Amino acid sequence: MNLPFATLAEFEVLLESAVGPDTKALGEAEARNVQLTKPPGALGRLEDLAVWYAGWRGEPAPKIIAPQVVVFAGNHGVAAKGVSAFPVEVTEQMVLNFQGGGAAINQLCETFGATLDVVALELDNPTADFTVGAAMSEAEVVEALTAGWTAVKPDADLLVAGEMGIGNTTSAAAICYALFGGEAEDWVGRGTGVDDAGLSLKARVVREGLAANPNATKNGLQALRCLGGRELAAIAGAVAAARSHRIPVIIDGFICTAALACLAMVSEGALDHTVAGHQSQEAAHAEVLAALGKEPIFSLGLRLGEGSGGALAIGLMKAALACHSGMATFAEAGVSED
Amino acid sequence: MNLPFATLAEFEVLLESAVGPDTKALGEAEARNVQLTKPPGALGRLEDLAVWYAGWRGEPAPKIIAPQVVVFAGNHGVAAKGVSAFPVEVTEQMVLNFQGGGAAINQLCETFGATLDVVALELDNPTADFTVGAAMSEAEVVEALTAGWTAVKPDADLLVAGEMGIGNTTSAAAICYALFGGEAEDWVGRGTGVDDAGLSLKARVVREGLAANPNATKNGLQALRCLGGRELAAIAGAVAAARSHRIPVIIDGFICTAALACLAMVSEGALDHTVAGHQSQEAAHAEVLAALGKEPIFSLGLRLGEGSGGALAIGLMKAALACHSGMATFAEAGVSED
Repeated sequence: MNLPFATLAEFEVLLESAVGPDTKALGEAEARNVQLTKPPGALGRLEDLAVWYAGWRGEPAPKIIAPQVVVFAGNHGVAAKGVSAFPVEVTEQMVLNFQGGGAAINQLCETFGATLDVVALELDNPTADFTVGAAMSEAEVVEALTAGWTAVKPDADLLVAGEMGIGNTTSAAAICYALFGGEAEDWVGRGTGVDDAGLSLKARVVREGLAANPNATKNGLQALRCLGGRELAAIAGAVAAARSHRIPVIIDGFICTAALACLAMVSEGALDHTVAGHQSQEAAHAEVLAALGKEPIFSLGLRLGEGSGGALAIGLMKAALACHSGMATFAEAGVSED
Repeated sequence: MNLPFATLAEFEVLLESAVGPDTKALGEAEARNVQLTKPPGALGRLEDLAVWYAGWRGEPAPKIIAPQVVVFAGNHGVAAKGVSAFPVEVTEQMVLNFQGGGAAINQLCETFGATLDVVALELDNPTADFTVGAAMSEAEVVEALTAGWTAVKPDADLLVAGEMGIGNTTSAAAICYALFGGEAEDWVGRGTGVDDAGLSLKARVVREGLAANPNATKNGLQALRCLGGRELAAIAGAVAAARSHRIPVIIDGFICTAALACLAMVSEGALDHTVAGHQSQEAAHAEVLAALGKEPIFSLGLRLGEGSGGALAIGLMKAALACHSGMATFAEAGVSED
């Protein structure tokens, strides 16, 4: 495969020169929407989602037939600080569970007809502990971005990039603290279930992370390299690849959103081809979504990761496009307009 | 078919003696839920929905394979007052659109693998104008309840009952005003798109309706008969039938919820086998859901009817049960618990 970047600087140029939606298809989709047999606006947000999707696909009346979910897994040096309720072995155990078909994400993909790919990223080689220096070297973060980029199927028509990585809500919190400021306490949450002491520990670790990596402050790609993890970088790479293939993306939860905030910091429109699938129970997710101007499709108290919230929204996106592209117009159906 | 009621009084007895959930299956489903490979509670509301569904089905780990959507259509004498933005002919035109596969509900049913049945209820014979007397006689409302009851497939495993009827948001508002009080203005909304003058007219019509039918006040089945319509009564009949077959129900929008409020007024637990699929854009829907203690699964600004919001939630219910019944336990997957 001919990769369009080999350094972080080249990846940055790629983000800044990304394609926009097809304005002709967008206009045609808007024109079609008002002719469908329903009162104007009666399908609410489904109408907006369908028109948005059509514009990115470059087709006035597309359907969703080949959604892809990719779950990236990575291990974090910072997990040794005791920031998770689960032992680090669980990352690999859950990868085996994904491969065996036993996890939530497997059932969700089957329910909504999505393919599932699982990409384990050097689980035996955790990132460095970011409280004492950068989590990854430039070569390591570029390798992870590349793993994400190459995992996207060019013929997919919708992408969800999920994650698995014990300790990665701490990594995501550190990224948000670096990019958006405030207090460390604003960005840490209970993850898979830490107690109050665990929450205080996470906040301290996040503060130490930024102190050890001052160049991550308000710098998207340095925050991703210094405070992120391989699975977070892979998600960023996959979402950038989706843009190049005109594949709309459903964002999953807090960790995924934090990884993608790194792209938005480089180029304001870098996430225009994405929609927020849900608002997670992890406390800071609502804050980072708001910072990115993303309105979640639903809010059901999920806090699992694995891409589960994004995958759940595949059904809603399929339904939105099925209505947009399958409904009769007033003229076709012989229904009176008001 | 051997029908369990022939009068409103017999229907009332039926509601008061309805079956409850299977407590053994409910307990087994709860026990299963905590063993699945996820942090406790990490699937949020999906977990509650799955356990609730399992209890009603009487199986600890069921899946949803045969969802049924029924759309009932009726015409309303009160439509002659000019309460809708659309002409009454649209009721029948939309029935033909449903039968031809061109409406939103057709696409939603296809997306989520639901069967769709369309039941047109005497469209040439509208209910009487409720501003001058009862919309239906006892015989007429019992006939409509029966049409709803018999439309439910006993082997369905999930039911959505939707509606089509020009003028029926006015009928629903009148029912809510009769059952819950307040001001007429609290219950009327823009429906398919009336302007401010239309809104004032609807409030006046609703007030006249209750003045002409004082026995509807806080009386569920009299409100349904005197202020409802054939499609509203059919929805009530279908949801009562679903209870007898242990079929869980997803409630659609404002009209559907108003019809079902009539059942809850008769017996407090009459809607325990139902869940609110969504919160509609129609202003009063949130109020009536709150009055019934129902928390909508999502809120996407829909205001179409046809059962569309309920049908959209079928995907979420399928996903919830796929996770509950398809995931591996910690022991099966060899994943460490915290």
